[in-house]
Amino acid sequence: MIRPLTILLTLLLSGCLAAQRPPRLSSPDENADGSYTFRYYAPDADTVLLHGEFLAAPQIMDRDADGVWTATVADIEPDIYPYFFEQDGVQLADPNNTHVFANERFKRSIVEVRGDGAQVHSLQDVPHGQVRYEYYPSATLDTTRRMLVYTPPGFEMNGNQRYPVLYLIHGGSDTEETWYQVGRANFIADNLIAAGQAEPMLIVMPYGNVRPAPMADFTRDVIDDIIPYIEANFPVVGDAEHRAVAGFSVGGGQTLNIGLMNTDKFAYVCSYAPWTRTEEFQRNFGDWEPDAAAINENLRLFTLSVGTDDFLYESVLQNIADFRAEGIELETHITDGGHTWMNCKKYLATTLRQIFQPAR
Amino acid sequence: MIRPLTILLTLLLSGCLAAQRPPRLSSPDENADGSYTFRYYAPDADTVLLHGEFLAAPQIMDRDADGVWTATVADIEPDIYPYFFEQDGVQLADPNNTHVFANERFKRSIVEVRGDGAQVHSLQDVPHGQVRYEYYPSATLDTTRRMLVYTPPGFEMNGNQRYPVLYLIHGGSDTEETWYQVGRANFIADNLIAAGQAEPMLIVMPYGNVRPAPMADFTRDVIDDIIPYIEANFPVVGDAEHRAVAGFSVGGGQTLNIGLMNTDKFAYVCSYAPWTRTEEFQRNFGDWEPDAAAINENLRLFTLSVGTDDFLYESVLQNIADFRAEGIELETHITDGGHTWMNCKKYLATTLRQIFQPAR
Repeated sequence: MIRPLTILLTLLLSGCLAAQRPPRLSSPDENADGSYTFRYYAPDADTVLLHGEFLAAPQIMDRDADGVWTATVADIEPDIYPYFFEQDGVQLADPNNTHVFANERFKRSIVEVRGDGAQVHSLQDVPHGQVRYEYYPSATLDTTRRMLVYTPPGFEMNGNQRYPVLYLIHGGSDTEETWYQVGRANFIADNLIAAGQAEPMLIVMPYGNVRPAPMADFTRDVIDDIIPYIEANFPVVGDAEHRAVAGFSVGGGQTLNIGLMNTDKFAYVCSYAPWTRTEEFQRNFGDWEPDAAAINENLRLFTLSVGTDDFLYESVLQNIADFRAEGIELETHITDGGHTWMNCKKYLATTLRQIFQPAR
Repeated sequence: MIRPLTILLTLLLSGCLAAQRPPRLSSPDENADGSYTFRYYAPDADTVLLHGEFLAAPQIMDRDADGVWTATVADIEPDIYPYFFEQDGVQLADPNNTHVFANERFKRSIVEVRGDGAQVHSLQDVPHGQVRYEYYPSATLDTTRRMLVYTPPGFEMNGNQRYPVLYLIHGGSDTEETWYQVGRANFIADNLIAAGQAEPMLIVMPYGNVRPAPMADFTRDVIDDIIPYIEANFPVVGDAEHRAVAGFSVGGGQTLNIGLMNTDKFAYVCSYAPWTRTEEFQRNFGDWEPDAAAINENLRLFTLSVGTDDFLYESVLQNIADFRAEGIELETHITDGGHTWMNCKKYLATTLRQIFQPAR
């Protein structure tokens, strides 16, 4: 007979855990009518606001007698959205939601509004690939760095199949985890591969920030460290026809620097809402006099994507015009919406359907 | 010549990003003298406190003219610690630190105080294994669940080597990521394997919470779903001599339920500061009349670990006495410290040195 110390533990718990932790809340919850309820415990708060990219404006939450603040939002378009609470002016992630937006400058939570659950980024009943953390030596940066690698369903490290590779770069204050945790690159790939709309591929998600090193060192890290590491350690095809590079915002600018300066190494360059106001971009493209014919010959696909509400919309239109003025062939994906991860997922899904396809 | 819209972007940035985001801060920073500095931007705050498990009491932070609050802490024993800020009564994770404590009920940040960087949990210059996210079907819970799987350096999915497996369970409000993000199970294994002190093994880190299902359903999920999935999809040895189960707090109680009720399936059962006030534990052990001789014969190792400052210390001492009163052979690891992840890492390092070793 193994007995716990019931009375003692009750006292200890009430004095210890209870004092350390608020009550367990379920937040967010999907309701039977498809609306979502957000909950936050703050008995001493004067006001609590819900901020979310599914809201046009912050929503005031309602307090109950136990100090739990609640907001219910209906008719949200199915997608994955960042949100956060604001208690008396202090912004914070949802304490009860384990899905956190991987970012260096803020903490946000993530809610998936599933709808019928058939979105391209949703966990569906299809074969699933794996996402793994890899630790690679960066000679460029003289350190060991972490990246995520997606391998498709049925992947065999020592099998006969050899795969193409997409190098996928996050935004400026994001991390190597953002394309997985927020962008759902793995489920988008799983679903498109299962539907026969994308080729089985590896997706390599490096950490694109190299502060305090100059940003151009990341380009060197990709070319000199990451690609050789991947090609030495995974069953991939190591030629331009089987390499793609894509990225969002600052990573979209890095994509242009990495891809267009190395069209002998990448046949697919897909830039999402690129941020191009960088010293590296100016050095590469400021006085650019490209051999457009050679670049067009090397590139199987060059795309620029942006939303009409993106604060970079005009800038990207200018990039598009400037590249075309140089005789560079490119495809544009102009969408609704802004500089958001909702759009990132759309751009990636479009890209995955296009790269590594039979020659046009 | 590709030119960005300099003036427009400057205006848009100042009106857009600047309004959305505080200035970039580096926090925490290790200083030349080995002290650590924490920074938090809150121009409107009256008071900001630093809470950390390296502090005996919260430390008041100092505000500078720009609204940046700073605290510097010296002489911290090298380890990995949870910490958080408290702005005017609101507790939140460090917005500038991407290392977040994976937990369902709070958001904390994590700081590694490296010292000479030679701690068993530190990233060292040794061969590194991989940690991968796996999605497995749980018939028990009728859903697809996520778990993390550590594979050791040199692991080959289709090679000749077959590995033993440790099933490692988190605490009550933690997640499947906590043993990786906070417990550093991968680096502890990398370092001990490199030193020849641990056998190459897989470490499977499932999600132990099954709310609203009864906790006992997790035991069924492990036995009926997780173990068959791992043994069908990884090169492992599927017998008791090559299976271990370990866990912390609520997971330490689950470890006793899973392991001691199934000594035909696990030869190694290692419970860290177990929480045993559960219906499942009462049902299994309340009127337990074990065949101690058979259990002792089956178990190669049974350990109970706890810290002398742990709020469960007396409870675990009672567990130890009760198991011994039933004739069950066990080894105890009594340490300093409390119910913390600093102790979790110590217990895991001790366990990894003991399991899957040649017969005693």
